Amino acid sequence: MKNVFLIGTGLIGGSMLLDLREHFKDAVFYGVDQNESHAKRAVENGIVDQVASIKDVVNADLVLISVPVDAALEVLPQVLDLVPEQALVMDVGSTKEAICKTVENHKNRRQFLAAHPIAGTEFSGPDAAIKSLFNDKTMIVCEVEKTAFKLQETAKQLFDLLGMRVRYMTPAAHDRHIAFVSHLSHISSFMLGKTVIQEEESERDIFDLAGSGFESTVRLAKSSPAMWTPIFAQNKKHVLDSLDGYIENLVRFRESVNTNNYKAIYDDMEQTNRIKTILKGIQNGK
Amino acid sequence: MKNVFLIGTGLIGGSMLLDLREHFKDAVFYGVDQNESHAKRAVENGIVDQVASIKDVVNADLVLISVPVDAALEVLPQVLDLVPEQALVMDVGSTKEAICKTVENHKNRRQFLAAHPIAGTEFSGPDAAIKSLFNDKTMIVCEVEKTAFKLQETAKQLFDLLGMRVRYMTPAAHDRHIAFVSHLSHISSFMLGKTVIQEEESERDIFDLAGSGFESTVRLAKSSPAMWTPIFAQNKKHVLDSLDGYIENLVRFRESVNTNNYKAIYDDMEQTNRIKTILKGIQNGK
Repeated sequence: MKNVFLIGTGLIGGSMLLDLREHFKDAVFYGVDQNESHAKRAVENGIVDQVASIKDVVNADLVLISVPVDAALEVLPQVLDLVPEQALVMDVGSTKEAICKTVENHKNRRQFLAAHPIAGTEFSGPDAAIKSLFNDKTMIVCEVEKTAFKLQETAKQLFDLLGMRVRYMTPAAHDRHIAFVSHLSHISSFMLGKTVIQEEESERDIFDLAGSGFESTVRLAKSSPAMWTPIFAQNKKHVLDSLDGYIENLVRFRESVNTNNYKAIYDDMEQTNRIKTILKGIQNGK
Repeated sequence: MKNVFLIGTGLIGGSMLLDLREHFKDAVFYGVDQNESHAKRAVENGIVDQVASIKDVVNADLVLISVPVDAALEVLPQVLDLVPEQALVMDVGSTKEAICKTVENHKNRRQFLAAHPIAGTEFSGPDAAIKSLFNDKTMIVCEVEKTAFKLQETAKQLFDLLGMRVRYMTPAAHDRHIAFVSHLSHISSFMLGKTVIQEEESERDIFDLAGSGFESTVRLAKSSPAMWTPIFAQNKKHVLDSLDGYIENLVRFRESVNTNNYKAIYDDMEQTNRIKTILKGIQNGK
């Protein structure tokens, strides 16, 4: 592997390269970013060796696309048009149906691997990139059978180097699952933050009373709107389903509080305590 | 201080004693608990020296009431009936209006201090007690002017030993603020956990895709129903207000997604990003 391109020099792609480049000492790493200061910062942070432009991928052995999911729909076909025959092109976005659909008939479809690492933080940009972000985490790979066998192998080796376990699923199943376990968490957190900020407008000292519980629940509300708006738009159907389920549960809980139905409140919480066992499963690896 | 009683040998009271007893080597610490195995466990864990019963508080210098908020309404008047003249009685529950009201006309009202430490974890019981839980945290004190001056002093010394800063407020303001920054977080987390568990019933692999974001947002759904049901019941009015605001925000967000109003989605998130600055304030102390 000689020439590695990162398109979108943010948290996810940046963190990947920080780990990968230790295994490819002879390769040159290029950063492509619409935001010039991000690209420069990625060089300063040692994520890439130099700034490049998208047309330079004609020399690529590996192209990692790590941009907002709406931009990815534009960038991926362009990259597939340009890359040489043996290059692997991979995206790491949080939705998989739209991007797989976009290139389903592309002549170089077999050079593309649709991936989604279940890892991240609430921060973004090249300064947010950290080492070992992916160690012991899950990489979801979609439509693996549409990727050339040799490039499947290459990708698998990269995931091994990052310390990741791989799960294969369809884009449709991925997008539905992830709406519930990731996208909904972000919305619930953003709306919690919004509700408390609104209340704070009339109650100045409210945040003096916020403890670690609030902090944990509202953490995802620090996330980037530029990254998340297109995710909700692309995954609209499943996001709406998850939101409907969530709002219905909240409305019922409200009704239980309002009617002093303490048994219903208790049972609701007790049944949800099962999350303890589930989360322990997550922490111990799957 | 010779005889210290802890009524309710769980996370909060237990953690307090673990720290306090290092400063009162000559005192004897007694644990009172309806749950006998909890009381025994508190002895084994070094939280208290021996098990006692509520009537033993006739010898108390300090009584710490750390039981569910509905039980506290029963226990506090009993304790105030029994304690000797110089004893300080303190509760640490998550609601303050009902308990202050319960003893407003008690002849020993001046021996009571209504407190609420903004600290805790999602765990409960004597095995959850940890050292330094309160270090650098906030202690809310309500109706301080109704407590005898000398006992205010005693309490303040205890809070200093625990490393806590003290904020004074009315029970009404406390209960409203805490509904938004604590009680609502718990409900949003419980209902998120419930929604994802419901979806999992038809989608078996869903938790394989859960990452640190979900984990953080759903952490509070591990909390004890026995502790939280009476809190929601006692703080009904403010909990309903906070839930109404939250549900309204979620419904509006859903509408923005449904009508492809990307600007509204983006703006909502961007404005809520202000939580970053606010949380930084919390982390740096107030």
